[in-house]
This record gives sequence, C-alpha cells and structure tokens, in this order.
Amino acid sequence: MLVFDNDDVKNALSMDVCLDAIEETYRDYGQGQAVNIPRADMLTPHPQEGYFYEFKTMSGAVPRYDICALRLSSSVIGFPTVLGTFRKEKVPAAPGNRWLGLIMLYRISNGELLCVFPDGYLQRMRVGATSGIGAKYMAVERAARVGILGSGFQAGSQLMAMCGVRKITEIKVYSPNRDHRYAFSVEMERELGVAVKPVGSAEEAVRDVDILVTASNAMVPLTKPEWLRPGMHVTSIRPIEIDDETFDRFDRIVKNSVEAEPLYYPMEGFKTPDTDVGWSTYQRERFPQLRILAEVVAGKIPGRQKPEEITYFLNSVGLGIQFAAVGAKFYDLARSRGLGKEIPTDWFLQTLHT
Amino acid sequence: MLVFDNDDVKNALSMDVCLDAIEETYRDYGQGQAVNIPRADMLTPHPQEGYFYEFKTMSGAVPRYDICALRLSSSVIGFPTVLGTFRKEKVPAAPGNRWLGLIMLYRISNGELLCVFPDGYLQRMRVGATSGIGAKYMAVERAARVGILGSGFQAGSQLMAMCGVRKITEIKVYSPNRDHRYAFSVEMERELGVAVKPVGSAEEAVRDVDILVTASNAMVPLTKPEWLRPGMHVTSIRPIEIDDETFDRFDRIVKNSVEAEPLYYPMEGFKTPDTDVGWSTYQRERFPQLRILAEVVAGKIPGRQKPEEITYFLNSVGLGIQFAAVGAKFYDLARSRGLGKEIPTDWFLQTLHT
Repeated sequence: MLVFDNDDVKNALSMDVCLDAIEETYRDYGQGQAVNIPRADMLTPHPQEGYFYEFKTMSGAVPRYDICALRLSSSVIGFPTVLGTFRKEKVPAAPGNRWLGLIMLYRISNGELLCVFPDGYLQRMRVGATSGIGAKYMAVERAARVGILGSGFQAGSQLMAMCGVRKITEIKVYSPNRDHRYAFSVEMERELGVAVKPVGSAEEAVRDVDILVTASNAMVPLTKPEWLRPGMHVTSIRPIEIDDETFDRFDRIVKNSVEAEPLYYPMEGFKTPDTDVGWSTYQRERFPQLRILAEVVAGKIPGRQKPEEITYFLNSVGLGIQFAAVGAKFYDLARSRGLGKEIPTDWFLQTLHT
Repeated sequence: MLVFDNDDVKNALSMDVCLDAIEETYRDYGQGQAVNIPRADMLTPHPQEGYFYEFKTMSGAVPRYDICALRLSSSVIGFPTVLGTFRKEKVPAAPGNRWLGLIMLYRISNGELLCVFPDGYLQRMRVGATSGIGAKYMAVERAARVGILGSGFQAGSQLMAMCGVRKITEIKVYSPNRDHRYAFSVEMERELGVAVKPVGSAEEAVRDVDILVTASNAMVPLTKPEWLRPGMHVTSIRPIEIDDETFDRFDRIVKNSVEAEPLYYPMEGFKTPDTDVGWSTYQRERFPQLRILAEVVAGKIPGRQKPEEITYFLNSVGLGIQFAAVGAKFYDLARSRGLGKEIPTDWFLQTLHT
C-alpha cells in the first residue's frame, strides 16, 4: 500500500492525462459502464462556538481501469464575513495547521487498497479537466478567447483545461481583489504561455470572449444577460454565479451529475448559513429534464448544434468516478516513477470477513 | 495515526464496554445528538464471469466521544449454491487470501485521522451489542432462556450480548449443520459459562424460550407463529428469517434504523441474485410508522408495556454511529495499552485545502 503526497500528484499528473481520463471515463459512464455512490455530507456541531464539523464521502468505480475510488474529507468549518459577505471556510485545525482530505484507490479485481493520498491537488485537476471536456464538446471549434471570474484555487486548473482542449490565445481575469488578479495573471501567463490580462470588472472579463469560466467564491450572481454573445460557451462550478436572466439565454444546458445537490445529513434541527448554494428553484423548474455531460461524451445527446447557440456546462455535483479516473492514471504514473512511501498491504487486510 | 488489527480489537474490547457505548450513543441519537450518512452499496461486474465487485460505505459522528467513523468494505463476491440454496459469499481475493473491510476514526474537534483497523471483529461486537440493548429495553426482566437459530459469525456476539443484559441460564442452538451447532455450543458454553445445548430442529430452539435470536444465513423464513409464546422477545439481523404470519403476532416492533434497505447503486442494467433481502413488502405495508431503537433508549417510546406482549427488534440496517461508539471506546482502551503500529499523522494531512 502506497502513501503519496500532493507534490507527488503535482509532479506525476499533467492536465492532458486528466483530460483523457475524464473523457474516456465519461464515455463509459454515459454507456452504463461506470458507477458512483453520490456525495454525502454530514454535519455536527463543533466544541467551539460558531464552528462546525463536516464529513464528506463520495465513491466511484471504473471497471476499464480496474479501480474504485473513495474520496473523503474531515473538516472543521467556520463562516467568517469576507469583503461584506459570509463565506464557508475550512479551518486548518489538524496538527501542524493542516487539513484532511483523502483519496483511497481500490483494485476491483481483488479488492485490495492500493494507495492513499491527499485530495488537494487532484481535486482541482479533476474539476478543471471536467470543465475542459465540457468545453471540448460544447464550445465552438475556433474558440480562442477565455474570460474567467475568480482567481482562487479552482481558477488555475480551469484555464489549464481550456488550453488543453482549444487553441486559446487570450485570457482575461477578473476578481474583486486587485492583488489577487494581478498575481494570478502573472502566474498563469508563465504556466500556460498564453497572454493573461487582469481586468477591472466582471463585465470586462465577460465581453467578447468565446468561453466564460466562473470559478469564484461569490455568494451572489456575477453575470448580466446582456454581456453574453451568440456562440459563447459558459461553464461554472457553482450555479449561484449565474443569475436567472442570464440562465434564460442559454440554448443548451448540460450538468455534471443528475443530482442537484449533495445528499445532506445535518444533526437534527441543525442549520449553518446556506453557503453551498445548489441549483436554484428557478433553474430546477426551468430544466426538469436535465442532461449530463457523460451523455454528450457518449454521443447520446448533442453538445452544440449551431455556431450561434449559447451553451452552458454546470460542473456540479462532483462524481466519484472522476477520482477513480484521474486517480487510476496518477497511480500508474507514480508507480512507474517509484514515488510514494510503502506500508505493508496486509495491515489493511484481514482473515475475518463480515 | 495508529493501525490496529483484529486481535487488538478482540483483546481490548469487551461486550460490556460495547453495550455501554451503544446504549449511551443510541440515547444521544434518539435526542438528535448524533448523525449518520446511511449505508450505500455500489456494485460492478468483476473481470471473472459470475463474480461481482461490491464497495460499501457508511459513516456516523458522535459528538459525545468527539469521534466520527467511516466503515467501508471492498469485496469480490460470488453466489454459490450451499445446501440447496444460493448464498452471497465474499471471496478472499486480496493478497494472502484475505478480505478488505476497514474502520477509520476521525477526531471531530480537529478533523485528524486517528486510526485505521479491520472491521471483522468490531463489526460483530457492534451488531451483538445493539441486539443486546434491544433486549435490555424490550425483553421481560426475568428472561433466562435463549434460543438461537444459526451458529455462524454473528451468532456468538449475539449470545454474549444477551448474557450481558439478562441473567441467562440456558441457551438452545439450532443450525442445519450438525457439526457446526455442536462445535458452536461447546465454544459458547466455555466462553459464557452458561449451559448451551445443540438441538435438532428450529422448533425445538424456539419453544419455551424468553428470547429468540435469529442469526442465520437462511434465505427463507425459519419460524412458525405457533412456536411463539406470550412474553417472548424476538430479535433478528435480517427480516427474511421471520415469516409474515409470525410477524403478525408481534405486538411491538422496533427497528435499528428508519431505512428499509441500504442505498443501492448497481452499474446500469445490472442485477445479482437478490440475497440481501430487506424488509418485505408485507412488513413494510403493515408497519408504515416504524419506530427505532434509539427512540426507545431515549425514552420517547416504550420498549415493552405488558409482560405478555411479544416484542420484536429487527437489527437492520446498520448505522455509522455504531462504529463511532464502539470504535471510540476501543481507541481509548487500545491507546492506554499501547497497542497498534504508528504511521506519521502528517502523511494523512495536507497544507492545501479544497
């Protein structure tokens, strides 16, 4: 049994590999050849007033790779007010001011636990790669300009993915914090070899682009319908960033999973500020027959039918098969490079069964 | 982070400790002071014809103990025919002919992973202890005679638990395999210090006892209504063992969880023989307003109201809080005895968060 760290994942795993893994796996999933246990979140009070404990799990199995993945996180969370709005924040409460989020990979053919590693880096890569495959099947072929709202931890892998599926020549970045958007632009320009320009408003980032990515922490809609133009592809991680009028301008909408929200198990009578806002009631009513990306990749429904359509891919809720797919590729690469620390496999096996 | 094995659990954990932990935790749960993510099972084909891969998770958090538990299993399964009926069988497919089932305990106050250990021994203890608490609140006070159907891996801890909550003086055991019931009787008599008698029929085991435990692998009902007598307490792990007419004779029915069955996620269009039979349609229709043991322990509903009532506790479906409760006690005992192998905690933590 091998234990890896985030640096191992970063060193071994490229966006191209992630894009291939997600595409292949979504094709399988769309054809009924992969399966998930949906994400479930459990919430309890924390000994310290104003904090909460959150435990999340999701799983997925991809027979093509002979891999089943479990992803879990065990977190202390708080709800501080940042720049006038409250946000959900994970507190680094574990020893050494750290967080806990883990991926475990299991071998389908014999059941054994192959490896355990933190989810931090791979999490971003699988989210980015999935938005990338969304754009591959839904954006216009000649898409070259990208606008992005947000410069936080999901933004970088979103841009890596867009550059992996289209010949991108220009990127505009808006986030409310000036320092953040400048630093992010410099970093991404270096990493991608594409011009990345920080801009002073959301409107400026959205106007005249072929692909709009929303990847912010905002708790309110960021877009206006008049900023969109025909032929655009829009992609978000959370639907809250899109207002209802903008939503009405989308000609084609595809989602990552059929679930509107994770399964939620709070302790009885227990409520935290509603920050992880799912699909709105309006959105749900308007699109009762929601289609998912796997159906597009498997060729069951079209991604885009006309050049002037405005398409939308909502990259939520996450699926366990994303971790199985990207994790399987990482595991093989890491093994071939001799990465990881070894723990005897039989520590995690038993001679009893239940 | 500590890794334990089944022997550590067996050496450190007594049934009395498990009974206390389950009772305390069920009282909390009945008062809304503990929470679960329900059990979910995922199923895929296996590379070898006739076999399947099954991945199961369940979680629970008990703030009283500052513990959150995840229990998972990763198994290759087959459906051989044994003594004329098919059974679900876990194949020891992992290296060294082993199985994989794990419990992981997390600290609510800081999120860290405290320990990992196999679920084999603890699994039986938590099932036994829960049936024990069912009997504590539902059996008549003077219950002294126990009949048990089955001599397999759940039967032993069921008897340990009954002896932990009532002054048991005589036990009768029936299972279809003569050698099994004799060997089991000898072993349990030695372990419990109570007379344990193997008997030649289910009827003989059921007649004139105060507590009937069904803990077999049978795929068909084992009981007949005329074998019951007033004042009896009956407890099962799976409802299939009780036929509908017997069911109609129960005056009071309590279940372990509100779920009728685990959440089930098979790969599309995919079916295995239906062996893990849940609550029957008949049973479900007859008891739409099912009550759970936690409500009894918390004093919200009565366990038994009259000496002549026939009571029934169905110990399914399992709950994550059972693992949190019994796991928390085991962890403290194991720590105080210096058990386990240590792995650096920071291998399972990260400086990124998602």
